[in-house]
Formats: sequence, structure tokens, C-alpha cells
Amino acid sequence: MYQFLRVNMDTRECRFEPVPREYEGLGGRGLTSAIVANEVDAGCNPIGPHNKLVFAPGLLGATNSPNTNRLSVGCKSPLTGGIKEANAGGQPGGHLARLGILAIIVEKLPKDGEWWDLEVKKDSARLVKSSVSGLNNFDAVDKLRGSYGDKCSYITIGRAGEFKLTAASIACTDRELRPTRHAGRGGVGAVMGSKGLKAIIVDPAGGDTAPIQDVKAFREASKRFAKALAENPVTSQALPNYGTDVLVNIINEAGGLPTHNFEYGRFPEHEKVSGERMNELTTKRGGEGVVAHGCMSGCVIRCSGLYPGKNGKLISKWPEYETVWCFGPHSEIDDLDFIAKCDYLCDDYGVDTIDVGVAIGTAMAGGGIPWGDKDAVLEAMHGISKGTPLGRIIGCGAATTGRVFGVRRVAAVKGQSLPAYDPRAVKGQGVTYATTPMGADHTAGYAVTANILHCGGYVDPLKKEGQIELSRNLQIATASIDSVGLCLFTAFALLDVPDALPAVVDMLNAKFGWQLTGDDVSGLGKRILTMEIDFNRRAGIPASADRLPEFFEEEPLPPHDTVFDFTTEELQKTLDFADK
Amino acid sequence: MYQFLRVNMDTRECRFEPVPREYEGLGGRGLTSAIVANEVDAGCNPIGPHNKLVFAPGLLGATNSPNTNRLSVGCKSPLTGGIKEANAGGQPGGHLARLGILAIIVEKLPKDGEWWDLEVKKDSARLVKSSVSGLNNFDAVDKLRGSYGDKCSYITIGRAGEFKLTAASIACTDRELRPTRHAGRGGVGAVMGSKGLKAIIVDPAGGDTAPIQDVKAFREASKRFAKALAENPVTSQALPNYGTDVLVNIINEAGGLPTHNFEYGRFPEHEKVSGERMNELTTKRGGEGVVAHGCMSGCVIRCSGLYPGKNGKLISKWPEYETVWCFGPHSEIDDLDFIAKCDYLCDDYGVDTIDVGVAIGTAMAGGGIPWGDKDAVLEAMHGISKGTPLGRIIGCGAATTGRVFGVRRVAAVKGQSLPAYDPRAVKGQGVTYATTPMGADHTAGYAVTANILHCGGYVDPLKKEGQIELSRNLQIATASIDSVGLCLFTAFALLDVPDALPAVVDMLNAKFGWQLTGDDVSGLGKRILTMEIDFNRRAGIPASADRLPEFFEEEPLPPHDTVFDFTTEELQKTLDFADK
Repeated sequence: MYQFLRVNMDTRECRFEPVPREYEGLGGRGLTSAIVANEVDAGCNPIGPHNKLVFAPGLLGATNSPNTNRLSVGCKSPLTGGIKEANAGGQPGGHLARLGILAIIVEKLPKDGEWWDLEVKKDSARLVKSSVSGLNNFDAVDKLRGSYGDKCSYITIGRAGEFKLTAASIACTDRELRPTRHAGRGGVGAVMGSKGLKAIIVDPAGGDTAPIQDVKAFREASKRFAKALAENPVTSQALPNYGTDVLVNIINEAGGLPTHNFEYGRFPEHEKVSGERMNELTTKRGGEGVVAHGCMSGCVIRCSGLYPGKNGKLISKWPEYETVWCFGPHSEIDDLDFIAKCDYLCDDYGVDTIDVGVAIGTAMAGGGIPWGDKDAVLEAMHGISKGTPLGRIIGCGAATTGRVFGVRRVAAVKGQSLPAYDPRAVKGQGVTYATTPMGADHTAGYAVTANILHCGGYVDPLKKEGQIELSRNLQIATASIDSVGLCLFTAFALLDVPDALPAVVDMLNAKFGWQLTGDDVSGLGKRILTMEIDFNRRAGIPASADRLPEFFEEEPLPPHDTVFDFTTEELQKTLDFADK
Repeated sequence: MYQFLRVNMDTRECRFEPVPREYEGLGGRGLTSAIVANEVDAGCNPIGPHNKLVFAPGLLGATNSPNTNRLSVGCKSPLTGGIKEANAGGQPGGHLARLGILAIIVEKLPKDGEWWDLEVKKDSARLVKSSVSGLNNFDAVDKLRGSYGDKCSYITIGRAGEFKLTAASIACTDRELRPTRHAGRGGVGAVMGSKGLKAIIVDPAGGDTAPIQDVKAFREASKRFAKALAENPVTSQALPNYGTDVLVNIINEAGGLPTHNFEYGRFPEHEKVSGERMNELTTKRGGEGVVAHGCMSGCVIRCSGLYPGKNGKLISKWPEYETVWCFGPHSEIDDLDFIAKCDYLCDDYGVDTIDVGVAIGTAMAGGGIPWGDKDAVLEAMHGISKGTPLGRIIGCGAATTGRVFGVRRVAAVKGQSLPAYDPRAVKGQGVTYATTPMGADHTAGYAVTANILHCGGYVDPLKKEGQIELSRNLQIATASIDSVGLCLFTAFALLDVPDALPAVVDMLNAKFGWQLTGDDVSGLGKRILTMEIDFNRRAGIPASADRLPEFFEEEPLPPHDTVFDFTTEELQKTLDFADK
């Protein structure tokens, strides 16, 4: 039924394999992390022959239940040196699941300078000489559509991935066949580039929805889950109407919007870059149709609006809150049109908006780019595609940029940049940044929920109390959510609507004939995190790396004048499950 | 008698302190490493307020015995993230010893953008606003000489240090008051730059030779040591006549001269860049007077010749073998005049010739600079001083350059680049690169002696047998030599002339009234290495980091087609003294 597709870039063999027993019950992040942990030498060079790149849809992929078609991408990260899972929306996750492919495992290296495209169809796969190497994502997808048509979905890297820049992403096409959904973080695109793999064409023809053991029970549970998403105000109103950028005003009000490279917690011009403003501006230009687009089949949240420019022509999708933040307040820029342009360039050149945006502000702090200078930012951004020295520097992310420009205050953990929530004012988020095996990653345990949004309870964001437990529980839950293929935004409903989590458990049981309980789901999360941490230890990342840059511990953040005041010992308890 | 000088860059207090009892018996590297290990939070940001920069002359500094005036510089390295000691010749080491200063400890940070010069005199010291910030080393020293005269010696950083580039060095003036002697490795110049300390002026007036308990015994022992140096053919003939560049033909013949970024072990044009050729070329241009210059008072080896250009005007000192190698064969360049020019630029801008030269060839491997393109290299080099993106990249060394240019084959260990001996053809050297706490460093345990030069015995360079023990013994001996203030080149005599080591022990005993034996000297070396390794563990560098990049383990090196074939377990035994 389910198969692995193993692709050897050296011999160019593409082999379908039965799924080994040990991987049963795993999908998405759980599966990519298990395969990487089992098969990859933790000490290997991330862009060398011994790393592997794994693509895996989630456990509920291709089931027609809401928001379950995310695609996980796993490998050893060239950015952090540790294990990495980054997941993306768009169509390929669902398509692979429809083909019964539980994981694609890409191994070895081709000869230097060779570029290949992988064609994946029902029960067949092959590597062909790439027809799109040298192109960025939008041109590459346009050309591939000409050859393979509009029923396929496409996974590609841009020039950044070809250059093996450590903030390079992997793009998945959305429902409009635009390469706008990215497995963004950790330089997964550099690993794909190192393997000489430019594109994966996923042809879903002949595939089908996933087999389900108890169809009736599944359908009922799925309806309950959809109802929960419709009931929750974040998933049903805030996100579709304003996108994730709805957070600008909220986080600014909370004093946690990192401004001028994490020197201040509020941005005076915040309203100019807010979700409310983006909604107003884009509907004025493009009408009601710009609002409420889903990025993948089955999405009922539809947070991804369209961003037309003054002339009505599309600039980009609605940039996410984190993108708006790093190209905006972090870099002293208050121009949404400009930020949308940067978002487009990140999608096109194939880089993580967060690490590159944070790199921009870091370069500004180091004198490499003048503060707020949009022309200079654009030139640097275009440099990513041209391969200029400055483009390559920012394309390697904030940590490398900070090093090259001699910056002392670099907001990164384990080499990965912090996102848009200052850990001194949203302390639960800081615990997650410090302790997740992924390097600083807001999605790994999104404490903004309880810290700011009063979702799933309330933990005072400025105090230490309760933050370790909050982050721990969220990290465990997230590892499971990332394995199911669920969009993380369903978490708002999962945390607040009592029937949402039971509905997901019931869907899993109905699909696989399991008898899971809520505790088992938590156990799965712990198992995944334990595997990931073990890989990191073997890769040479010690427990002492679980901390924030020292300036967060020492410089009070206005307006609340708080510091991040957790000891290393406290932080190291976060993911210590031995006595839990 | 002896004092510490503690300099606080925040309060600008300069305080002389008695030497705490725990530091008795330590000097040079032993002292810098002990102070860093005791006083610096191993987890701190190397360019932040919690790192300290320590300068310490050796135990035999200012004694008038031969070749004992080196100056050790220690800190947490911004290049490796671990402990660092880099030492330099020139005059400041002897001058500080004459002033009775056992160590200068520079702490804290000034306000952003402030630059200070430290004036050190007999029993007084103060910080004054820098008169030379913004200048490179040669201009800075010229200007300082104008203010302070020619009897002082000067410790400065160039623009690279001001920019906090991780391959920035610290320059010490030589006997001709040229800033040509560098504490080169590990980015110590970036730490000095982070502290806003542009220059140290050492005025030896009022100082004296070091006090000696038994003057007669010391004088006798010193004569025996001088005799040993005069007997040994390397120290008495090869080095003065050809400089360290005498090694080009020797290492090429051995098949261990890394060529074209470590793809080959021989360079067809090796004779064009050999020490023999350098001697011939420079004596033709400048007469016999170019040969046999010592870099510091008391030097009897005098390996540092002068390099005049075609017009007779000085281009640089004789570049060292490692400098010739990395700007030469490693980068497909066979032009000695050009290499000498690069050597001068490194001295002037203040960067480690090795890490920057290796970065050049690494950038070539990544397409950032065309192979062998001298104009492009010069432009990149000038970029270090101008602060261009490319200049900053190479100024951060080979590891950063490899990352930015997406290079898979990057020759670095713990972030520090490998020097000029391919570890597949000089395997003892490879063991040292992998295991020294300093990051890849040939001087930390120079196995070329027994592997190639038949000095101190012979261990076949292409075989595994005996290399671990060889590297261990050399690393222990070197840690001691670096503590005594001895030039490492005395090691050729120490290894080959039976009376040389006893003479050094007798000098120490005569000076301090000790009763050391040769075993105690070895114990000192082990104690230093143990402190350094412990610091690295606390800094988050695990034992598993003691390995070479995987391509050395997998790609056979022509002409011998050998690989570096030590297991991690074998390597980790090198500096495990528990059962020894």
C-alpha cells in the first residue's frame, strides 16, 4: 500500500521499497526525523554525500479532512548542524500521499555541476536532466508547467539552493501553481542543491485518496474537526481576514515586536505594516477576491490572501507576519508594498524569509546596509540570485551575516535566526527558541498562544512562572501535529475547542484501525523530540547550546524593561522527559 | 616583582595586581590559557563583554637567552568558539617581560565606536583616545612612532581587527619597528577590536632583564642551548638561508603539498615558489643583506629575510612557507613577488595569512574568485581593508568563505583552516589538526619533524602506526615550549640535540630556583592541554569535533593515493592522559 521512494543521485536509481516495520505509525516530521536519525551519520557534512533529504506527507495526507496536506522535509541542516524538519503547505504533500508515497529519500551526490529533475508518477519515478537549472522558482515552475501540465505539482529550488546557501528553502506550488509555499528554515534548499536535484514533478494521476479503515467513523470525526476550526475565532475570522500579519498590532501592543535588531519592543509605525492595513490596502486594489485563499487542497482556514500592487498586478501573496516583521520593523522599514516585493523575491530566489530578513537587519546593525535603505536592501536581495558576495552572505542567514559584519548582537540560536517575538517580552517563546532541537523556531512550540492570545490558557509573558511547562507541552504537541500533516494554525482550535483534539485522534484511529488515546499522541511527540535531540548530541551539539544569545539575558527590552532570565539548568529541563 | 596589568575597557581603569599564587610557574601559553580557563565564561560571546584578551610573555622572557621573547595572546576564539593561544615574535614580548609584567588582562567593552590606545610603562599604564583608529598596521605604527619614538614597541590591529573579522590578527613590531610579527590564528585581532583597543604602546624604559636566582648556572645553561641551536642544521643553516619556505620543495617531494584546494599533493611549478628560489631572487635584488634577520632580540636563528621587489624596494619580509603555500599552490599561483605582496597586505590589514590564504583558494573552489586570478585576489585582499562584502568574507577565514560560497570541500577543523601539510600524506600532522584544542594548527604538534625531516626519529608519514603517539608527545612538548616563550623553531634542536632540552630545564631552574626535571616539563604540557580541553568542553565543543573534514577520509590524495584513516576512537585517545 504505502511505499518509500529511494532516489540515488550517484547511480540515478529510483527504487520503490516497502515501508520497514519500524516506521509504522509515523508520518511527516516523525518520519523524516526517524529516517534521518537512523540513516544519516550525525557527524557528516550536511552538503556532502552522507546526508539524505527526506520528503514525507503527514499521517492524514490525502484524506480530505481539513488542513492535513502539509509536506515535511527533513535532513541534517547545513544552517544549524543538527537535525531539521521544515514543512510546507501547497499541493505536493497531498499529491504524494495520493500516490501512496510515504517518503522520498534522496541520497548521495551526482557528479559536480550536474542538475537533475525527478519525475514521480503512480508507481514509477525517474531522474531526467534538468530542464530548469539556472532558473529561479517562478520561471522554473512556468517552464515545468509547459512540459508537464497544470495537474502536477512542483517542488523546486531557486538560485539560492543551487548556490547551497544555508538559508535556501524548498518551494512547493500552491493551488494556483505558484511556488509560494516553502519548507523555509534550516537550509533544506541547500541540501537539495547539493544533491543536484533542481525539481521534483509530482503527477497525481492514478492516485487516490488515502485508504481508510473505518470510512464512516472517519467522516464523522473529520466533520467534528471542521466544526472546531469554524468555531474558533482565530482560525475562522482573524487568519482569513488579515492573514498572520494580524499579529503586528497585537505583538506591538504586548511590547514584543523586535525593532531595530531587537533593541526595542515596539515599532512606532506599526500600523503601517499591520494586517488590518494589508487587508484594507489590498482589497481597495483588488476587491474582495484578494482575501481568504487556501494554499492547499482541503484548507478551510485560508489565511493566504493576494497582494496586488498599485497597478493591480500581483506583487506576492500576503506576506506572513514574520516576513513583514523582519523586512519591516526589524530593519526600520514601514512600507508594505516594499515588504511584499521582498516576500516575492524570497519565494522566487528560494530563501527563508525569516533568516534572510533577520540577516538584512543584522547587516544594518553591522554597517553593511544603511538602516531602512530600501534600495540597498533590494540590491542585496537581487544579489542572492546573482550570487554576489553580499547576496550570498545574507542568503546564508543572520548568523553568517553577523559574523561577516562583526555584529555582537546577533539574534540566532544554534545558527538559526530568531523570529518575530522578542523572548524578553514573550518568555515562553524564548524557552522554545532556546530548547527546540531545530534552532530558534517559533513554530516548534508557539507559546504566543497562552502568552499573548489567551489561547489554551494564560501564562504571563513577562514572568518566568509556567513558561518551561508551557513550551514543553507545546513542543510535544507540535511534534505530533507536524507528523499528522496538519497545518500548525489548527492549533488555535486544538488548544481552545475541547472536541478538536479528540476529533483528530478519532480520525487517526479510523484511518489506521488504531486505538490511540490523547496520551499516545503526546507520547509520539516525546518520542520524536527524543530522537531529534539524540541526533543533535551525536552531531556535536551539546545541551549547553540550549540558550539564547547573552544580550537577551543582559539588555532590558523597552517598554517593559525585562530580560530573559532563565538559567541553563532551568532551560535544560524543558525537554528532559526522563522523569515525566 | 612580577605583576598582572588588568585593563577595564568599560571603566578605563588600568590596575597593577600581584600575581595570584595559583599562577606561579606559568608563563606564555600556560598563563594565558589558565587565566582564560579561570576567568572567562566558556559559553560567552567571544566578541562580547565577558571575553578577556590576555597577553603574556614566556617564562624565560627578557633573560638574554636565545629565542625566548615570544608573546602569547589568549582568549576565547571567535573563529573556533574554543580557547585560543596564538603567539608572536617581535619586540613587545621581551619588553613586557623587562617591565616585570607577567600578563596584561583586557576586560569588558567600551561604548560602541570608541577606540583606545593603551600606554604601558614601568609601573604605570593608561588608556588614551586612539590616535590611530581607522589606519592599517603600517600607518598606525608609523604614526605611533612619531608620538612615542623608536625605543618603544607596538602591538596593533589593522582594519580587519576593527571590523572584528574572525581571521584578524594582532601585530607586534619587529626589531626594525615593522608590524610584521603576528599572533595570527583564531581571530585574536577581532577580540582586540571588539574591546575597542587599537594599539598597545610598550615603553621598556626603566625595565631590566629578568631577575635570575642563579646567574652563573643560568649563563652556562644558556650557552649550552645556544650551542645546540648552532649545531642543528635546520636552525643554523636551512632556516636562516631559506626561511621556512625551504619546505616547499621538501613537502612537494613528499607528496604532501596541498594543491588546488587539497586536490593534489604536488604542485608542478613548486620550484618557482621555493625557498631556494626566494633566496636567489631576493639576494640578486638586495644583496647578501636580505638574508638572516631575526624578528626579535635574542634570536640566533634569524629565519626572517627581506623581500625586495624588482625595483629594490621592500615588498615584505620573506613570506613563511605556509603563506607561500596558501597564496601559491593552494590557489594555483606560482608568482613569488605576488605572494610577497599578499604577505605584506596581510601584515598591513592585520589578518592571519593562513586562514585568509586558504579562504582565497576556497573561494576559487566555490567560483567566487577565478582560479589563479591574481588581479581578482588583490581586489579581494584590498576589500579586507575597505570592508567590502568579499573582503569581509575572506577576512573571516576559510570556514566562513566555504559556507558563503557553498563549498563542500573546506579544509578546516573547529572552524580554523588547515595549513600547508596534507594530512593524508603527513598523517602525524593530520592527527594534530584533528585533536589540538586550537583548531587545525600545524604548530600545535609539528609532526613534520619525524614524518618528513627525520628529526627526533622517523615515523612513516603515509602509515598510521606511531602517529597518535608522535602527535601526543609533540603537543605536550609544544604546550611547554609555548609557555617558556621559546620560538617553536628551537624544537628542531630540542628534538635532535641531546643536550638542548636539559639546557632549557636548567635555565628554568636557574632562573626561578626550581628543581624541575624533564618529566615536570612534560607534566606542564599535559596540565595546559587538559585546561584547554576542559574549557572547550564547557564552551560546547565536544570530543566528536576532533576529526578532519570527511573528504580527507574518502578522497585519495595523489601521488600516494592515501586517505586519512584514523577512527574517531583512535583520535580521541591522542590527548587522553588519564592512563598515561
